[in-house]
Amino acid sequence: MPRLSVPFVLAAASLTASAAPALMPMPVEVTPSTGRLVVDGSFHAVAAGPANAFLEAALARFQARLARQTGIPIGFGQPPARPATLTVTCAAPTAPPSLGDDESYTLDVSPAGAQLQAATCYGALHGLETFLQLVTPEAGGFAAPAGHIADRPRFPWRGLMLDVCRHWMPIAVVERNLDAMAAVKMNVFHWHLSEDQGFRIESKRFPKLQELGSDGLYYTQDQVREVIAYAAARGIRVVPEFDIPGHTQSWLAAYPELAAAPGTYEVGRVWGVYDPVLDPTREETYHFLEALLTEMAALFPDPYFHIGGDEVRAVQWNASPGIQSFAREHKLEGAHGLQAYFNQRVQKILEKNGKTMIGWDEILHPDLPASIVIQSWRGQKSLADAAKQGRRGILSWGYYLDHLEPARQHYAVDPLGGQASGLSSEEAARVLGGEACMWSEYVSAETVDSRIWPRAAVIAERLWSPKEVTDVDSMYTRMESVSRWLEWTGVQHRAGYGPMLDRLAGDMPVTALRILADACEALGLGPRARARKYTSLVPLDRFVDAVRPESELVRSMEKDAAQQSPEALARLREQFTIWSANNARFQALAGDNELLAEVKPLSRDLSALGATGLQALGYLVSTQPAPADWLAAQNTEITRMLRPNAEVTLAAARPVKVLLEKLGRKPQP
Amino acid sequence: MPRLSVPFVLAAASLTASAAPALMPMPVEVTPSTGRLVVDGSFHAVAAGPANAFLEAALARFQARLARQTGIPIGFGQPPARPATLTVTCAAPTAPPSLGDDESYTLDVSPAGAQLQAATCYGALHGLETFLQLVTPEAGGFAAPAGHIADRPRFPWRGLMLDVCRHWMPIAVVERNLDAMAAVKMNVFHWHLSEDQGFRIESKRFPKLQELGSDGLYYTQDQVREVIAYAAARGIRVVPEFDIPGHTQSWLAAYPELAAAPGTYEVGRVWGVYDPVLDPTREETYHFLEALLTEMAALFPDPYFHIGGDEVRAVQWNASPGIQSFAREHKLEGAHGLQAYFNQRVQKILEKNGKTMIGWDEILHPDLPASIVIQSWRGQKSLADAAKQGRRGILSWGYYLDHLEPARQHYAVDPLGGQASGLSSEEAARVLGGEACMWSEYVSAETVDSRIWPRAAVIAERLWSPKEVTDVDSMYTRMESVSRWLEWTGVQHRAGYGPMLDRLAGDMPVTALRILADACEALGLGPRARARKYTSLVPLDRFVDAVRPESELVRSMEKDAAQQSPEALARLREQFTIWSANNARFQALAGDNELLAEVKPLSRDLSALGATGLQALGYLVSTQPAPADWLAAQNTEITRMLRPNAEVTLAAARPVKVLLEKLGRKPQP
Repeated sequence: MPRLSVPFVLAAASLTASAAPALMPMPVEVTPSTGRLVVDGSFHAVAAGPANAFLEAALARFQARLARQTGIPIGFGQPPARPATLTVTCAAPTAPPSLGDDESYTLDVSPAGAQLQAATCYGALHGLETFLQLVTPEAGGFAAPAGHIADRPRFPWRGLMLDVCRHWMPIAVVERNLDAMAAVKMNVFHWHLSEDQGFRIESKRFPKLQELGSDGLYYTQDQVREVIAYAAARGIRVVPEFDIPGHTQSWLAAYPELAAAPGTYEVGRVWGVYDPVLDPTREETYHFLEALLTEMAALFPDPYFHIGGDEVRAVQWNASPGIQSFAREHKLEGAHGLQAYFNQRVQKILEKNGKTMIGWDEILHPDLPASIVIQSWRGQKSLADAAKQGRRGILSWGYYLDHLEPARQHYAVDPLGGQASGLSSEEAARVLGGEACMWSEYVSAETVDSRIWPRAAVIAERLWSPKEVTDVDSMYTRMESVSRWLEWTGVQHRAGYGPMLDRLAGDMPVTALRILADACEALGLGPRARARKYTSLVPLDRFVDAVRPESELVRSMEKDAAQQSPEALARLREQFTIWSANNARFQALAGDNELLAEVKPLSRDLSALGATGLQALGYLVSTQPAPADWLAAQNTEITRMLRPNAEVTLAAARPVKVLLEKLGRKPQP
Repeated sequence: MPRLSVPFVLAAASLTASAAPALMPMPVEVTPSTGRLVVDGSFHAVAAGPANAFLEAALARFQARLARQTGIPIGFGQPPARPATLTVTCAAPTAPPSLGDDESYTLDVSPAGAQLQAATCYGALHGLETFLQLVTPEAGGFAAPAGHIADRPRFPWRGLMLDVCRHWMPIAVVERNLDAMAAVKMNVFHWHLSEDQGFRIESKRFPKLQELGSDGLYYTQDQVREVIAYAAARGIRVVPEFDIPGHTQSWLAAYPELAAAPGTYEVGRVWGVYDPVLDPTREETYHFLEALLTEMAALFPDPYFHIGGDEVRAVQWNASPGIQSFAREHKLEGAHGLQAYFNQRVQKILEKNGKTMIGWDEILHPDLPASIVIQSWRGQKSLADAAKQGRRGILSWGYYLDHLEPARQHYAVDPLGGQASGLSSEEAARVLGGEACMWSEYVSAETVDSRIWPRAAVIAERLWSPKEVTDVDSMYTRMESVSRWLEWTGVQHRAGYGPMLDRLAGDMPVTALRILADACEALGLGPRARARKYTSLVPLDRFVDAVRPESELVRSMEKDAAQQSPEALARLREQFTIWSANNARFQALAGDNELLAEVKPLSRDLSALGATGLQALGYLVSTQPAPADWLAAQNTEITRMLRPNAEVTLAAARPVKVLLEKLGRKPQP
């Protein structure tokens, strides 16, 4: 456990009081002192020590970020007269970022200047992000509070997986998310490059893969190199995933002979798990994979290489007498045995290329070498099982962003929690960290940022900060700040909301629609899949796509409803009044607009909630209790309203529910 | 005057009722018919006739815009089965866009498809923008209403001038504004490239100009060629301006020997008109200008070339015995005579390079040839004078966006109005159009879009649409829609508002600040210059920089206050309630944040206005009149509140003022 010079929760509290800076991930040690370092146009950061091109480039980006964040023209005009404001010391990197790099740093801020020291430049990058988070406007203008911060990550593998296959994600999307990842100290970009619905990278050896398997939407190898360099400059490793032997229908569109059943195949358009898989019994399969993976292994410098391995359907394998007899001959038990055989062959190809194999839970099998890494999407058990077998693993179960669960749910999941909590320290050390996963069935390039951020930031904190940093209120307060701060990285998670609502409103003023959207929360994978038939051709331009996964407004109202100070009740009354008047305006706005037809019942419910809320506030201050039958009827309505509707939740029902619960507990006279 | 198949005002009304599309500039003829053309994933536009690479590229951009605007994946997956949705006919351009091109088009939309026909592809581009404006969500999803549109511009010169010198504007800013210009059918980008505060373009002949005159912030010649090609693909001419002989201090930083007085010179940092000017008497000046202008004339293909010529101070000329004796020798009358001599020399250089000279009012002089073009920033008189002398001109007086005047003020200015209204038809034909001007003393790359758009769109309408299109209510309704629609071009005029307010709020939730900002209007050049000492190093990150030039909220409240329907009064009551409660929350948010200190009095006034508004609403529905002394006191307060404060206007006072006026007219019992 990290040494703490002051309890970090106390430090956190002192730093987040009123307008003080919100740090996320919370550093290991924060020791505030007095005063502040003013940031103005004379600010300049310098690299100490010998020439260090990596750090110079990082400082140029840092100064540009600081200029955007503050609006101050920094580094413009005459060279500043005063000494360097921030001095950074680290040795120039001699290799790309790699697993286990020393990422620690110390940052000392005083009114006279700041010192950032790190063993590696990858650590220094983290310290620069912490410095940016420290800068806020206060009495003397923009400034960073004085203090000492010593920081280092709890886990060495802190990743984000992005599925660029179900919906295409252009390079700009990837790069702006790399900037946001770096801002919250994530260090692995897991690039899910092939799927049933698309093969998204150029192969020079097998160009039909992208020509027939991608609808023309793929990265060239030059672009891939650009992304790898972009990531490395930000201390982020790039781990490519080629998902085999399942999830390969786009490969089969180009090379049907690789399939375990004869036929012609088309790029997938619908969501779900497909039957077609690679044939694990033919040598031609391995010749193909050896050539392809050798090509790709040369393109990606990181020693870890992801082969997917999830959700392999046995339908084709079971139906093939040839495959079945092969299995008997090689004493392979069922589909899992066949897959393990396949994985062993693939692992040898990767090993020849100097790569360590990583795959989803399903690849776990005693026949595979101890060196492989397991990525668990099914729970901490497989991670614990692997660790006990001497294998390393990372957690993604509980970190699936596409489910659009609230941040606190991800925040509560610890890689060493649940069934991994009993591991010995030696075993626990094999748990390398985790990855947030963004599957792209229900996101497009336009909406994906808003489904990753800010929730991925709390997963980043879980993987970086001491295990004991678990206060949910502090997390939400800081997450809201950091969400706004992340905009200066260029990520678009907040930028799309207004335009998407404007689009839905057509030429009508949008206010009534926005009031409704602010009170709703978008639902994720499960409820969306059940609501209607989606394919890659269905537009993601509806109400649910604009609405955010979590409502800041509703969260603040839940707090107000629980707290019930006079100010809190006044705020609630205002908001309920707005809601109760909103439906008439919304219906006028919606007219016969087909895109808003599904939202009309939600709008009626919102106004009803406003009216109920106002009544509940009345009963709260009244000497008379709320009538029991009224309470019962309202509770029934709330329960109904909290059910999915138009693929969103009417989150507005929650603060009203809190008030009704209070009324229910009020003693009868 | 254009032929109108139906009165356009009627047509406009029918098209802008409820959720119908808002067109801006309003086309010459709009003949609605029944039905609509549905836009879905099978939409595809095709170029009719022989190969036309220009049009193909334009259609690819058009489809991408349509996809962004609707959120529908267009042109993705299988080729569409149905016939082309939009067929475009025009001849491939044989030359870059030029003054007087036929820009007319006709657009016929039916449920079965749409036909766009134009004599030139530049006309077709305008038709594509009109089609995009037609597409809105309605009963069948996204669709364009059926009808016939025939359209052509009133004036051939419809420009935007951008000053990239006082504050630097990166290429991305220029390009996104070119996209927005094209969207409202503007066709001239006037690029103000040199100023006292910066020489912003690479000269290979005189590299010291950019090396010593730009702080490193300039366009390379390759970038300039990129911008010219980008503009030409959008039907926009690029007219460069090199402002001489005044406004040249940045030139003198590199070449002090060109000045009319000996000395050393530095790039300007402060705003205003500088004394240093070029020496018009030395042959070396003309050798230098001949070499430089010849280099630049080759870079810019357009035949028009702007030499500025505004605000030439006579201080250095008057103080120089050599210059004064030169003037006597050549019989040049005063500074204007000297400038005319200088302009004649420059004009001959440009003529040798095949260029027509254009300059600001001040260049108007009988000794210059009839071919020169006058850009009037001082009024319609100089335009009329020039036209009577057989010279052509364009109007910019009344179109200065940096003054942050309301859109209706620009809208009321007609190039053929005022002292130009008496011109004969032959003289009037010499008035080529106009240009909106964006001077950049008080804008940065972050804020400039929000000061250009949407107000430049109403100037675009003034220059394109029939003279009789002057209804201000219709203009505002359509401008608000078109402002939202412009976001799909990529221009950032709405995007910065939220983040800039977030920046001011630091780590505090921003709502109370946003409520205040929504009720204010930013002031422009004059009030800002009087408020404090600005230089190019002063950050533009304050409240005034975030606040918009016109408040949509306040405009709607003024309407409500005038109309006084029960719904209108309910809306006002809600808003006044929010305002009256806002100050306590704002003060808590502002704390000791220095950036918000200047805004605290505004916040107190806003809450007072909320209270006054609520009282006024009470008196309106009461049988008792408002007490005269109360009314007088409130009116005094309103007058005070409408004065500039923190470089903004508290626009919120206006709807309250309307209510007070109603109360004042209410008969005493």
